[in-house]
Amino acid sequence: MLLRVIVSKVESMKKITVIGGGTGTFVVLSGLKKYPLDLSVVVSMMDSGGSTGRLRDQLGILPPGDLRQCLVALSDAPELWRKLFLYRFEKGDLAGHNFGNIFLAALEKVSNSYDEAIETVSYVLKTKGKVIPVTLNKLHLVAEYDNGKRVTGEGLIDENHAEKSRIINAYLEPQGKANPKAIKSIEESEYIVIGPGDLYTSIIPVLLVSDVKEAMKKTKAKIIYIMNMMTKSGQTTNYKASDHIVDLVKYLGREPDYVLINNGEILPEVLSTYKRYNEVKVVNDLEKSNFQVIEKDLVDVGIERIGEGDID
Amino acid sequence: MLLRVIVSKVESMKKITVIGGGTGTFVVLSGLKKYPLDLSVVVSMMDSGGSTGRLRDQLGILPPGDLRQCLVALSDAPELWRKLFLYRFEKGDLAGHNFGNIFLAALEKVSNSYDEAIETVSYVLKTKGKVIPVTLNKLHLVAEYDNGKRVTGEGLIDENHAEKSRIINAYLEPQGKANPKAIKSIEESEYIVIGPGDLYTSIIPVLLVSDVKEAMKKTKAKIIYIMNMMTKSGQTTNYKASDHIVDLVKYLGREPDYVLINNGEILPEVLSTYKRYNEVKVVNDLEKSNFQVIEKDLVDVGIERIGEGDID
Repeated sequence: MLLRVIVSKVESMKKITVIGGGTGTFVVLSGLKKYPLDLSVVVSMMDSGGSTGRLRDQLGILPPGDLRQCLVALSDAPELWRKLFLYRFEKGDLAGHNFGNIFLAALEKVSNSYDEAIETVSYVLKTKGKVIPVTLNKLHLVAEYDNGKRVTGEGLIDENHAEKSRIINAYLEPQGKANPKAIKSIEESEYIVIGPGDLYTSIIPVLLVSDVKEAMKKTKAKIIYIMNMMTKSGQTTNYKASDHIVDLVKYLGREPDYVLINNGEILPEVLSTYKRYNEVKVVNDLEKSNFQVIEKDLVDVGIERIGEGDID
Repeated sequence: MLLRVIVSKVESMKKITVIGGGTGTFVVLSGLKKYPLDLSVVVSMMDSGGSTGRLRDQLGILPPGDLRQCLVALSDAPELWRKLFLYRFEKGDLAGHNFGNIFLAALEKVSNSYDEAIETVSYVLKTKGKVIPVTLNKLHLVAEYDNGKRVTGEGLIDENHAEKSRIINAYLEPQGKANPKAIKSIEESEYIVIGPGDLYTSIIPVLLVSDVKEAMKKTKAKIIYIMNMMTKSGQTTNYKASDHIVDLVKYLGREPDYVLINNGEILPEVLSTYKRYNEVKVVNDLEKSNFQVIEKDLVDVGIERIGEGDID
């Protein structure tokens, strides 16, 4: 794993904060939890699609989907609990709803605070690490496209595959305030891991919350950005690695210290699935810069087995 | 409590099995769990109304409602867990559904056995005692009335308030088999507590399951029947205490050893609520019989403070 080197270099538990919320974050957390780290994840709270979107609209709750995924990723509980939290009902009134989402929804209703709700889930899932919502405000993501179009809601932006125009601006509505615990975690970390994940629907929503950008500037943490392997239509259409960095830096307020990028072969059958959505491999066009580029075969080894010496 | 005397008489933990499933059982279990007893509850699995009914119909699961209530009654977990399991969603897709029911439904789907599902809930709720479904078959209750009418489904029988005709027969469809753990619990108990609870929708459904009646005859346990305070329209309309006993004995296959019956005053405002449904106080017309009748003020003290010496 990229971070094994960090672990092996010192005796003390390194404090690491992961930023994100989607499937990429799930994979990173599932890997990192195996190491003796002081691990936190600051989670996007803008999800508005699917089961999560319906629950937040109908019940006026915070979106549970990304939190639930992070909680399961860090879980050290018996397999049954992980299966339960990922279980999706198929029929009837509950059709399409994920049990973990329903659990967080009910907990939010009966708890005295959202902290208490997360602590309760963390207790049953025996999570190794802290799961921190980036904000406790109910916010929506807005994307403005180069053609003048504006789309509100993470779910709709995520599904806007057909959009050919580039996103020129993203912001939150309303602006909202960061969870002080998220700021503390960013400021006190030694390493911050961003991505992989959909740039505009998993990563940038975290960075957009007030005070997060400032905390990123202030922290002495080394920032590691894990580049996506594939483009995402309607969001990073035809983006090369440098395009990802430009957009990331705009919302992060600084350059990352390390960029981890895939140089392995992706199986043709996998590529052809992506091709149906006009999604292609992200080309590494990164030239000399202030950050260190680490090229590794992330396809074969996942992000599990990046050896020592990769990070100065 | 009626059973304090049992507890106080011996040093060993007495084994007690409670029979039922509704609100009455909830109250009995909530009281009994405070004592150092080896406590089990054999729960009715015929519920077909409300949230439980919709979940069993839509998802093909066992009815979770009565189980959930018993699990919560025996819970020694922090108040938050009890509140969570009793929480009912008010809006949207989940409107009317109880979280505890949804939890049991999802667990049934991901568990290897129903035992595992109940063990998992018992673990989080820290239940003091064993909650045992009377059967693991999917059965429905059928009631035949004196006027020839037949109603299928516990939920419909329960709501059939307007019915003036007496229930002359009740049976299960299909017949189904008892859970061996239920039979074992009945056979090995020293005391069995039946009721209070709706005679035809909470008590008799348990007794109707194959082998239960035989186990009741075989067991050396003393049977304590707690008489309902009020009649229930459409089910025990105008029933006196002796009518309850006649119907109970028919399905129990023997007389109880003790009958606990209220002699306290019920507040006029409470009585007038019942009166709207033509429900009245159950009159104690019990004459000399083989069982011991214990009259106590159950209104004031609940069933909490029946003193020593009440049971021989």
